[in-house]
Amino acid sequence: MSSVQNGRYNGGLPELRKDPITGRWVIIASDRAKRPSDFIRAPVIPTEPSFCPFCPGHEDKTPPEILAFRHSGGRNEPGWTLRVTPAKFPVLNVEGELERQGDGMFDRMNGLGAHEVIIETPDHKATWAEMPERQLEDVLWAFRARILDLKRDIRLRYIVIFKNHGAAAGSSIDHPTSQLIALPVIPKRAREEMDGAQAYFAFKERCVYCDAAQQEAKATMRLVTETDRFAVIEPYAPRFPFETWIVPKRHDSHFENADPPTMQNLAWVLRLTMRKIDKVLEHPAYNFVLHSAPIQEGPMAHYHWHIEIMPKLTRVAGFEWGTGFYINPTPPEESAKFLREAGL
Amino acid sequence: MSSVQNGRYNGGLPELRKDPITGRWVIIASDRAKRPSDFIRAPVIPTEPSFCPFCPGHEDKTPPEILAFRHSGGRNEPGWTLRVTPAKFPVLNVEGELERQGDGMFDRMNGLGAHEVIIETPDHKATWAEMPERQLEDVLWAFRARILDLKRDIRLRYIVIFKNHGAAAGSSIDHPTSQLIALPVIPKRAREEMDGAQAYFAFKERCVYCDAAQQEAKATMRLVTETDRFAVIEPYAPRFPFETWIVPKRHDSHFENADPPTMQNLAWVLRLTMRKIDKVLEHPAYNFVLHSAPIQEGPMAHYHWHIEIMPKLTRVAGFEWGTGFYINPTPPEESAKFLREAGL
Repeated sequence: MSSVQNGRYNGGLPELRKDPITGRWVIIASDRAKRPSDFIRAPVIPTEPSFCPFCPGHEDKTPPEILAFRHSGGRNEPGWTLRVTPAKFPVLNVEGELERQGDGMFDRMNGLGAHEVIIETPDHKATWAEMPERQLEDVLWAFRARILDLKRDIRLRYIVIFKNHGAAAGSSIDHPTSQLIALPVIPKRAREEMDGAQAYFAFKERCVYCDAAQQEAKATMRLVTETDRFAVIEPYAPRFPFETWIVPKRHDSHFENADPPTMQNLAWVLRLTMRKIDKVLEHPAYNFVLHSAPIQEGPMAHYHWHIEIMPKLTRVAGFEWGTGFYINPTPPEESAKFLREAGL
Repeated sequence: MSSVQNGRYNGGLPELRKDPITGRWVIIASDRAKRPSDFIRAPVIPTEPSFCPFCPGHEDKTPPEILAFRHSGGRNEPGWTLRVTPAKFPVLNVEGELERQGDGMFDRMNGLGAHEVIIETPDHKATWAEMPERQLEDVLWAFRARILDLKRDIRLRYIVIFKNHGAAAGSSIDHPTSQLIALPVIPKRAREEMDGAQAYFAFKERCVYCDAAQQEAKATMRLVTETDRFAVIEPYAPRFPFETWIVPKRHDSHFENADPPTMQNLAWVLRLTMRKIDKVLEHPAYNFVLHSAPIQEGPMAHYHWHIEIMPKLTRVAGFEWGTGFYINPTPPEESAKFLREAGL
């Protein structure tokens, strides 16, 4: 166990910390402080496919593509560098009208929405840390293109784009993919972030994410890296060890407004972050989630799109489920130091 | 895939359902509807201990006991049937004053609180489904006794009691134990439940849990079993397959107010529920969480203590973390039917 630079972190006593956005309290259980080597390692190693429906030549094993970047070939033929298709087993259906219904004392609606798979590359064994930067930028452009298209459907109110990497993170396939789910409601967590950010704005007349990005870049103890456009930070009250956020320095509520230099820089910084995580934590399973404002709402002065990356190093147990209160054995000042110092 | 009695559940289309208490939307992804046999089985089988610090004769391997039920022996000696000790590696410390501090733009406090382990029985291989009913009742009495004792410490505001059974549920030990964590703050999830229940009460002048228990007992399609004192239900908008709630029929906000007949009946119904879960899902890992009102607050007309049991059958992936929006492949009407019909 070690104390942290600037003397801010007292490395012997547990601490309760409050996330300034959602108001969530987290226990930083320093008596159990964990270094990267203390976690059980389960490196995610891509394997040779026996049969993979996402590899080139198997285009007929997925629903027809919605979007593709390609250097040759026609629709649903090889020659693509990235494809987006509807999910084969979608959790929501895009057809029909939204019907809200009462059900006794309860409320429900039909499962209207979209569920798409972004097949990020033809290379079955690619990872975000290792794929060419240009390819990762294409993945981000595909995210943006799909949001802009789905946004025209006014039945849809919120889009979440996420990636589960490795079995421990909930992935059942090796081929590099991300997923998009478009919903007819604003999910609870997104609403909480926006409400919390609005309360901060009402008090300070500043965006809480702008404040955090600026102050963390200055204080540096929770800073992983920064560019002129992004701050990569370990948040003050992280739920999980090595939870990492990528926050744009320029305020914008909607990811889909990002301009080409921002997209290019994001690809660079995201790849660097994943390389650092892979190096320090030995290729862990992780979840990636893009947090952005509801698609039918205009620009918000109080909300700020960002990325959250959660390496899967611990299990969430009963206490967390019961309370929404997390125990994190690694202070963010510690994890930031490891990631900051990871030479590549 | 099958449709459900009473024609309420349309077994082909996904559905969005809203939890009436927290307002959380859940996708019931019926296209993926899962029967018990569709889940990966990983039965939790208690093993012979090589060395177990919780077994009789090893009392010196735990911190000194706070409470014990015993038929012979002195403090910290064998002869006990149940012991409660402080956690050996507590996530919070009980000594000192609560200090709230600013930290730049952030807020923190010292990690004041209590963290205790309930060693439920000397029998290393016991489970809630298999232990004598009287022993399980003692576990519940120990919960109550510890709450009543800690309640006198006005620095503490909320107590969560939980059990992680099996490695998939976050347990690292075999010996049957539960844990208690007492916090100096009201955790987010508890606050959400109380706020949601209060909003319902403001509108209806009835408790939402009373309404749910009564209506589910009447409609029966999400009812697992009932006694004169408890309804065991699959909630309308469960986050997880086979999520099961035990709700007292008589309104009370605080578990610690339960009287002896209620405690006795709870032991009976809890054991029955665990037997049904073990039978239908083949001894799954699970989390148990007792939800009760903040300990320093008086009786609440709008809040209602209850138990939530979550068998661990699926992994929580990026979508859930990002949105607080869950995808559940098993309609509660289906899981209730399986549990209801499980002969014992």
